[in-house]
Amino acid sequence: MKTDLDHRELDEIRKKRPSKYRGLNQDEISLGLAESDFEMPVEVKQAMIDAIMNGEYHYQFDGLPGFLEAAKEKLWRFNNLRVGEDEIMPIAGGMNGIWLASRCLVRPGEKVIAITPNYPPIIEMPRTVSQAEVVETMARGNFHMDLEAIEAAITERTRMISICNPNNPSGAVYSREELGGLAELATRHDLYAFSDELYENLTYDGRRHLSLASLPGMKERTVTVFAFTKIYGMSGLRIGYLVGPKEIVKGMKEENSRVFIQPSTIDQIAGSVALAKCDYYVESLKAHLEKVRNHITGKLNEVPMINMSPPEGAFFAFPDLSPLFQDDENAVVYIRQKAKIQVSGGKGFGKGGERHIRISFCSPWEIVTEATARICRALWARASSITSHEESSPKA
Amino acid sequence: MKTDLDHRELDEIRKKRPSKYRGLNQDEISLGLAESDFEMPVEVKQAMIDAIMNGEYHYQFDGLPGFLEAAKEKLWRFNNLRVGEDEIMPIAGGMNGIWLASRCLVRPGEKVIAITPNYPPIIEMPRTVSQAEVVETMARGNFHMDLEAIEAAITERTRMISICNPNNPSGAVYSREELGGLAELATRHDLYAFSDELYENLTYDGRRHLSLASLPGMKERTVTVFAFTKIYGMSGLRIGYLVGPKEIVKGMKEENSRVFIQPSTIDQIAGSVALAKCDYYVESLKAHLEKVRNHITGKLNEVPMINMSPPEGAFFAFPDLSPLFQDDENAVVYIRQKAKIQVSGGKGFGKGGERHIRISFCSPWEIVTEATARICRALWARASSITSHEESSPKA
Repeated sequence: MKTDLDHRELDEIRKKRPSKYRGLNQDEISLGLAESDFEMPVEVKQAMIDAIMNGEYHYQFDGLPGFLEAAKEKLWRFNNLRVGEDEIMPIAGGMNGIWLASRCLVRPGEKVIAITPNYPPIIEMPRTVSQAEVVETMARGNFHMDLEAIEAAITERTRMISICNPNNPSGAVYSREELGGLAELATRHDLYAFSDELYENLTYDGRRHLSLASLPGMKERTVTVFAFTKIYGMSGLRIGYLVGPKEIVKGMKEENSRVFIQPSTIDQIAGSVALAKCDYYVESLKAHLEKVRNHITGKLNEVPMINMSPPEGAFFAFPDLSPLFQDDENAVVYIRQKAKIQVSGGKGFGKGGERHIRISFCSPWEIVTEATARICRALWARASSITSHEESSPKA
Repeated sequence: MKTDLDHRELDEIRKKRPSKYRGLNQDEISLGLAESDFEMPVEVKQAMIDAIMNGEYHYQFDGLPGFLEAAKEKLWRFNNLRVGEDEIMPIAGGMNGIWLASRCLVRPGEKVIAITPNYPPIIEMPRTVSQAEVVETMARGNFHMDLEAIEAAITERTRMISICNPNNPSGAVYSREELGGLAELATRHDLYAFSDELYENLTYDGRRHLSLASLPGMKERTVTVFAFTKIYGMSGLRIGYLVGPKEIVKGMKEENSRVFIQPSTIDQIAGSVALAKCDYYVESLKAHLEKVRNHITGKLNEVPMINMSPPEGAFFAFPDLSPLFQDDENAVVYIRQKAKIQVSGGKGFGKGGERHIRISFCSPWEIVTEATARICRALWARASSITSHEESSPKA
């Protein structure tokens, strides 16, 4: 395996990913935005090209039948969920599903419990879109659910509990036990559940992803968003799917048809092939990312005062930098200046994210190892300066 | 030119357009949904394929620069509008623009004046999306604006006037004089204007399309939606652009980013080439559609009791069938049964649309001439039965 960074490859990645590299200089690497540095599977490319040549890009008001078929088949095979035509809909990416849930499941004044840290739009959108109140319930130290804290947060006004599993940013993969505990709470208090399962394919150390909706009694009260363009290296395509109770899905279909009629037909064709024919691509990506995860975790844990468990899933490292920085934004700026690497601050991910940074590592080995080396070098320097400062301080 | 319908061609069109042909039998032709039967330009296909091969399908949060450039250049060249980066945004098709305008320009309780007949979502969405009140102001007999009626409808609560130009369903292409009159009203009463100019390229008899926003004083109060996928035979792609005052466009960009981040990158690539390189396609389409228009108008006017001016633009014939039918839905059902042709009822297009039907004629010559012949044969039969009924009626 090559260990030197091929800068031509990085230049190519940079050029094709203007949003991930927005505002960055030529010598900087982005491990900020959650966007894959890899390209989409060749089968997907070929299917899109065939559709373009064959004139298969006209209206599909009810969703492309082949896309819905592929999604339903995958839901049964992978998620143990059997869904009917009226319980599924194509969406224009994960954000569209979060928006729909925020709009259709909660009303002004109702309360949503978001288990944090969590993907920022999941925390923010019930408030901005539906004037609901969002209560952040912090995960335990290992980023797993604190069921007692969740139950304590439930009041008469609580309508929904929102999770992201595997978790962005922490990588936590929820176990059958904790999902069962959550299901019990949701059922007993008659709540909706919202589950963002974008990273479902990326679970490490032999863990298996479990869909909340597949637990007894949960299908009729859970809306699950399955977005997958980030996994298949096709982030600019706007396609995914959502599963939920049929009366809810009916309203959501009406909402989307008002806003933009339907997701792009060509993107639905791409999605159908990704779901039906590209398991090999995901397996190979997962094997690569597990190696990357091991490398980053090892290197970060060598830095004095940093102690991080390996992320269980997804493609983020989320170390606690509180021994080194007062504030996560300071850490982001410091790493950008010293290491020339863009990472994300943890505060935006809600309670429990403060003083963490998120390192998005869906990149080729050479790029991610160079970036890790640069980040760790900068953090070592920071740790040394703190130690020497403490040593030279009269109070130390 | 062939005059016999090539049924293999019709079968192909039917197969590729599931929404246009939804629920129709094998022997039926759809002139219902406003969807082109033609395929997209080869330059667009090639650009999409190149982008797929080259990995140019990742996030473009701020819009694909090439798309925005092509749109701005076309706005200057064709619409006499010079706009800055902050006055334009990509949208996921025309519906998305109508939704944004309904959401961002009016508030609950405010009034919108829609000049009718008009595209149904333009009439309905201010109410469904923003709980605004919509006042339908009927065009004069020739489908042109009744400025006195518009002024009479303006009250303290009026916030916006909405037009579709060239008009769907009537084909009316508004003149400089009437647009000037509307601009004067909007300025004097300090109103927003909403202008849907989807069919801007399709104006007949040498007419030139004039953008409302290009009139003095209008750019700062007009939101214009330019959707074009219907024109370029690529309806399932979700791309278009919107132009408006910068503070309004800023809010609209935030709305869209919450709902689905951005229109598909691949669709933006398609759009950039359609706008920059395919004027020849539009010219050729327009020449074809003008011939079709002449044919349909001539044939319909031969039917007893039908009297229709040739549509000035767009691709719809909108005859008044009130001498033949009590209700437009009766007419639609009758034509479906007798002629095996799907057309649309006029009532949904608002005041002035009742007892009309809309015939969407963006189809090959053979298909549209056969469909016209079938429609006219059915209408002749209807007219004859009414005449003979009147003759045999004691009161006649």
